[in-house]
Amino acid sequence: MRKYNFCSGPAALPEPVLLRAQEELLDWEGRGCSVMEVSHRSPEFEAVAARAEQDLRDLLAIPDNYKVLFLQGGATAQFSAVPWNLLGAGQKKIDFIHSGQWAKKAMEEAGRYGEVNIVASSEDRNFSYAPAADSWQQSEDAAYFHYVPNETIGGVEFGYVPEVSCPLVADMSSSILSQPIPVENFGVVFAGAQKNIGPSGIAVAIVRDDLLDRALPDIPRSLSWKVAADAHSMDNTPPTFAWYLSGLVFQWLKEQGGVSAMAELSWRKSALLYDFVDRSDFYSSPVAEGSRSRMNIPFVLADERLDKQFLQESEAAGLLNLKGHRSVGGMRASLYNAVPVEAVEALVNFMADFEKRVG
Amino acid sequence: MRKYNFCSGPAALPEPVLLRAQEELLDWEGRGCSVMEVSHRSPEFEAVAARAEQDLRDLLAIPDNYKVLFLQGGATAQFSAVPWNLLGAGQKKIDFIHSGQWAKKAMEEAGRYGEVNIVASSEDRNFSYAPAADSWQQSEDAAYFHYVPNETIGGVEFGYVPEVSCPLVADMSSSILSQPIPVENFGVVFAGAQKNIGPSGIAVAIVRDDLLDRALPDIPRSLSWKVAADAHSMDNTPPTFAWYLSGLVFQWLKEQGGVSAMAELSWRKSALLYDFVDRSDFYSSPVAEGSRSRMNIPFVLADERLDKQFLQESEAAGLLNLKGHRSVGGMRASLYNAVPVEAVEALVNFMADFEKRVG
Repeated sequence: MRKYNFCSGPAALPEPVLLRAQEELLDWEGRGCSVMEVSHRSPEFEAVAARAEQDLRDLLAIPDNYKVLFLQGGATAQFSAVPWNLLGAGQKKIDFIHSGQWAKKAMEEAGRYGEVNIVASSEDRNFSYAPAADSWQQSEDAAYFHYVPNETIGGVEFGYVPEVSCPLVADMSSSILSQPIPVENFGVVFAGAQKNIGPSGIAVAIVRDDLLDRALPDIPRSLSWKVAADAHSMDNTPPTFAWYLSGLVFQWLKEQGGVSAMAELSWRKSALLYDFVDRSDFYSSPVAEGSRSRMNIPFVLADERLDKQFLQESEAAGLLNLKGHRSVGGMRASLYNAVPVEAVEALVNFMADFEKRVG
Repeated sequence: MRKYNFCSGPAALPEPVLLRAQEELLDWEGRGCSVMEVSHRSPEFEAVAARAEQDLRDLLAIPDNYKVLFLQGGATAQFSAVPWNLLGAGQKKIDFIHSGQWAKKAMEEAGRYGEVNIVASSEDRNFSYAPAADSWQQSEDAAYFHYVPNETIGGVEFGYVPEVSCPLVADMSSSILSQPIPVENFGVVFAGAQKNIGPSGIAVAIVRDDLLDRALPDIPRSLSWKVAADAHSMDNTPPTFAWYLSGLVFQWLKEQGGVSAMAELSWRKSALLYDFVDRSDFYSSPVAEGSRSRMNIPFVLADERLDKQFLQESEAAGLLNLKGHRSVGGMRASLYNAVPVEAVEALVNFMADFEKRVG
């Protein structure tokens, strides 16, 4: 029996996607073999790849002057790829918003190749808010501006797209496909798949095509967006099953009404949980109002000695993976696209009952 | 209905592995979610990862002073990783055996960071043989020696392990786990999974631990073996489903009798096909005797105008993916571990019948 899964990643996948993958796992489209067992260069797999790209383009209204790349190594490989691909045109400064652990990791790697300028930081309050744009100290000559629209660990989301004068790079791993985005305002959008796209082992990069010629000369071939773009993400064997599953998720998203429907749903789901937490004296949110993520919702119990009991009982009640990240403590419910409203209702009911019994 | 699949990669997987994955795709070990939907840092996935590593260590008798890494980016990312990880100790020369397309690709990437010395080449006869060791021109001070024990495209296999005085690096993508290997004779063994390990999207590197401190200072984090080793291949989210499936393949291999049994089987399967081809006047092998691969067996028809008909009829007979690589022409049957003897028997029967009717 399937349970409700609030894992921050690798996260829940849509059940209809898993059912279809299961059904055709040994005999895909009547071909007598699995989709995992065909050449990535066969016409049948190329059709899978092309459809996945087109569906993603449709879902996010990606303009024609952007390349859509399906890559390996997750967002972390992109922490290397971004500076290697963008620092070859002379500018060495990189503007960063330091909003939490994922910004920090990207910053550390970028700082090995360029000069990091921290435009703003929310470290002073344990990364519990998105720094207001009027406080930012931008460079005049940055090669690019990197930010994390949604910090998975802190549960902090920027409610707007920064306006900057250099290419804007967004690590959208935990919020991509949860709402419409103005792709044309970005230079690069990248995301690991394992939250809102598909299984782990594949990442997506959406790159404005004028940025493909700025790479450092020594860039390793496997990190080059240009190489990937020229080869339609098949310079070498891609992770075919992860690509196929991501494509099934894109089809499912279209059937659900696309990213506008997902945005509406995410507001509904997150409001359900935040409203309950805000009304409660037992639970509280460590995240500042106005910066609260629709995707990752940390909350703490009034007495942390009850955390263990909460986790044991919630798991027994079929509510999986609610443990918070150690840097924030308490609990975290990740409400990605594949998590249904019913899961959040069940969580809130459990929380109310737990409070009544134990709080 | 499952058909016989001779794809060179992504290749056939053992049917029992796919059946098990199918059975538990939505509800893994009764947990109410897929193995794809749990954190890589959860105890349950860590157990999957640890068991996969131990089973691989058991299968190949990997000594304790070797790290076993599960990586992304395929063997191609290792074409970058090898020079980046091994050229930081001062030596810049790299010895290569140029045995075909996969040696060439690795050589081109390595040549961007070091000085390639071609020890021997079989380009003179279209990469149809393994150059004899007494012809090699080794450097005296190479940082490492790179070779491809089995060339997937040419169907050429080295019947022995080279003796060299520097770390020996082997791209074993298409022959790993097909026979016992003396791991202690190698500095590094790496392999993309999609032939003899599991699905595409994961690669294995087996690295002697004294080689972990030779990296170039600017090495991208995602290419560093040291980073991967220190983090037990979880510096970032690994491709969990591919890792899990590879682990199931390792378990299946152990049940089959391990790599000695696979070696015996591979001799039996490849001999069946080679013997038939050698007895025939209609089919022929372009590969020199003594260099013939047990894994990838190219063969050509006496009249190439019959290729198309051969491919159409073989596919109709349930024999998939026999088309040869364009650089060799004709046909190629890849006989990896998951391809049963019955598949080769069916192929030979079809070939005999085709010859009788058309030849």
